[in-house]
Amino acid sequence: MSRGSLIEQLVLALRCLPGVGPKSAQRMAYHLLERDREGARRLARQLQAAADQVGHCTRCRTLTESEVCRLCGDASRDDSLLCVVETPTDVQAIEQSTSYRGRYFVLMGHLSPLDGVGPEDIGLDLLAECINGGDIQEVILATNPTVEGEATAHFIADLAQLSEVKVSRIAYGVPFGGELEYVNSGTISHAISGRREFNL
Amino acid sequence: MSRGSLIEQLVLALRCLPGVGPKSAQRMAYHLLERDREGARRLARQLQAAADQVGHCTRCRTLTESEVCRLCGDASRDDSLLCVVETPTDVQAIEQSTSYRGRYFVLMGHLSPLDGVGPEDIGLDLLAECINGGDIQEVILATNPTVEGEATAHFIADLAQLSEVKVSRIAYGVPFGGELEYVNSGTISHAISGRREFNL
Repeated sequence: MSRGSLIEQLVLALRCLPGVGPKSAQRMAYHLLERDREGARRLARQLQAAADQVGHCTRCRTLTESEVCRLCGDASRDDSLLCVVETPTDVQAIEQSTSYRGRYFVLMGHLSPLDGVGPEDIGLDLLAECINGGDIQEVILATNPTVEGEATAHFIADLAQLSEVKVSRIAYGVPFGGELEYVNSGTISHAISGRREFNL
Repeated sequence: MSRGSLIEQLVLALRCLPGVGPKSAQRMAYHLLERDREGARRLARQLQAAADQVGHCTRCRTLTESEVCRLCGDASRDDSLLCVVETPTDVQAIEQSTSYRGRYFVLMGHLSPLDGVGPEDIGLDLLAECINGGDIQEVILATNPTVEGEATAHFIADLAQLSEVKVSRIAYGVPFGGELEYVNSGTISHAISGRREFNL
């Protein structure tokens, strides 16, 4: 008890959640204790279970409690397409768009030599094996359009070209439903240089 | 597992936190699993411990894991003053102002007949005992300046007057450091009707 009361310790522990400062942590702690103890117990169980049991998919590296994740285990997906993304949330974003039926590879990060993140740390050895496996006909690079994401995309493109597999990059441009006025100039210059013929 | 993967269940469980919607819950879950499993385990332990062990102080009704809370157990506080507040966070707010050295009574709510919250539900029987106990010379009503808070304050004032104990209400007025321009008219009319002589 030298570290304060149980409530103070709970407030402190809640601070590990992203975007939760001292005031919201306090509000959360009192809310749970005054109104939702069952919710608090359920959250405790799920945190413990997830922290103990969730590991990485042996094929695509995403987070899963099984050896192979749901998408890798789905026999109806197209084995000839492999989409490379940085995080599991990117997979969810693409799945929600329902525009892709191929496989995924999740880097769980991006190349960042200054932070000591090299090719092995983001599973590029495993990715090279996948690409050399033979089934894949196209690698779609869907890393983020940041400096690190771009560098990672280039590195993987080299890798795929060694294996003579076609490589593509998801399109940059003006977001659908967005207004030109509010789009930054880098995006606009990409949208203009990447323009396509208008099909009537 | 019929209710989805462990990650999906964790996202769902995080939704019990106030102010956390589907997107932030997902962000929190992936953050903990990718970067802070130790934090997730610590949070699980603290949630479980607090949900199981935190109860109410037998004197002031605030949340505590002991029989008597830290403030009620502090012999240096002034027993002649009793400040009545709605929630434990109100106690913290007043303590942070370091302007009060008396005792507290925490209602853990306010009178709300429409929601079935009557005098016993907010511990007014225990409060009446306290007031009749003899030590208290002034009851300070610090319930919120809302309709329910006001009604609760009036109810307690009647109670205290039966025992011939002095009753006061914390001051309404313009917040210190605020600008008149941005203060609502109800507050301004309270500030004017509650004006005090200027002491040079």
